[in-house]
Amino acid sequence: MALDSWNTYVSRGDKLLNGLSDEQLEEEVAPGRNSGIYLLGHLTAVHDALFPLLGMGEKLYPLLEDIFLRNPDRSGIEKPSARELRDSWKEVNNKISEHFNQFTLDEWFQKHAAISNEDFEKEPHRNRLNVLLNRTNHLAYHLGQLVFLKK
Amino acid sequence: MALDSWNTYVSRGDKLLNGLSDEQLEEEVAPGRNSGIYLLGHLTAVHDALFPLLGMGEKLYPLLEDIFLRNPDRSGIEKPSARELRDSWKEVNNKISEHFNQFTLDEWFQKHAAISNEDFEKEPHRNRLNVLLNRTNHLAYHLGQLVFLKK
Repeated sequence: MALDSWNTYVSRGDKLLNGLSDEQLEEEVAPGRNSGIYLLGHLTAVHDALFPLLGMGEKLYPLLEDIFLRNPDRSGIEKPSARELRDSWKEVNNKISEHFNQFTLDEWFQKHAAISNEDFEKEPHRNRLNVLLNRTNHLAYHLGQLVFLKK
Repeated sequence: MALDSWNTYVSRGDKLLNGLSDEQLEEEVAPGRNSGIYLLGHLTAVHDALFPLLGMGEKLYPLLEDIFLRNPDRSGIEKPSARELRDSWKEVNNKISEHFNQFTLDEWFQKHAAISNEDFEKEPHRNRLNVLLNRTNHLAYHLGQLVFLKK
């Protein structure tokens, strides 16, 4: 159910992005707020960070972290183009899907990488499944903003 | 974990609303988009509908459905005041919490009211827990929009 929910929101993201031009993506989602490009990069960077966090390997695009997680939109740091970010978004989510589809139920309840064995004994809910729930909500939150780019 | 996630987003909603004046709530979240009042009424109506859907009794505010679910923001139908909606939002969520805290694990996996026994045999994921996941995402989606009312 949690995985269905994740897949649903990733698909909604894909559909929304397919309906937006690169020019639209460069606009702010509301006056004075983040640009579509920034939110797309931010979501891609957050999803990319799932690889190490969930024990699925290394990040595909480690450079996104500095631009889209550690710095705000108008940091002056050069951003990848809309075209590049669309490709990264797709590749990251596709690779994530391959891993997600192979996790067994037990593996979903195993700890994620950002918690120690000791803490996990006390807080067993800090597992992969919990990360999945949180990241789905995070995605929904920002899709609610990106949708404003639609005319 | 799913319940924690719901509680987290309801609390974020409370905190956001407490930081907004009634005048701010009456504004559009972005030019030409829904007003804060409409989104607050919409979320309250969706949450209120959980009572019959999850077998927790009758809706507290059945009149909200027509105004905030069946009709768009600029329908011309008179809306409750910001004050009234804030109270309804709180009461609905508080009553929901009382029920949620009492559901056993088995009860979360029982079917919701909008699916027949026959269909539920084929699709056992259409249960209360699944509704909870979906409504949490729905809440996160609109909170991502309401946050634009903050100055």
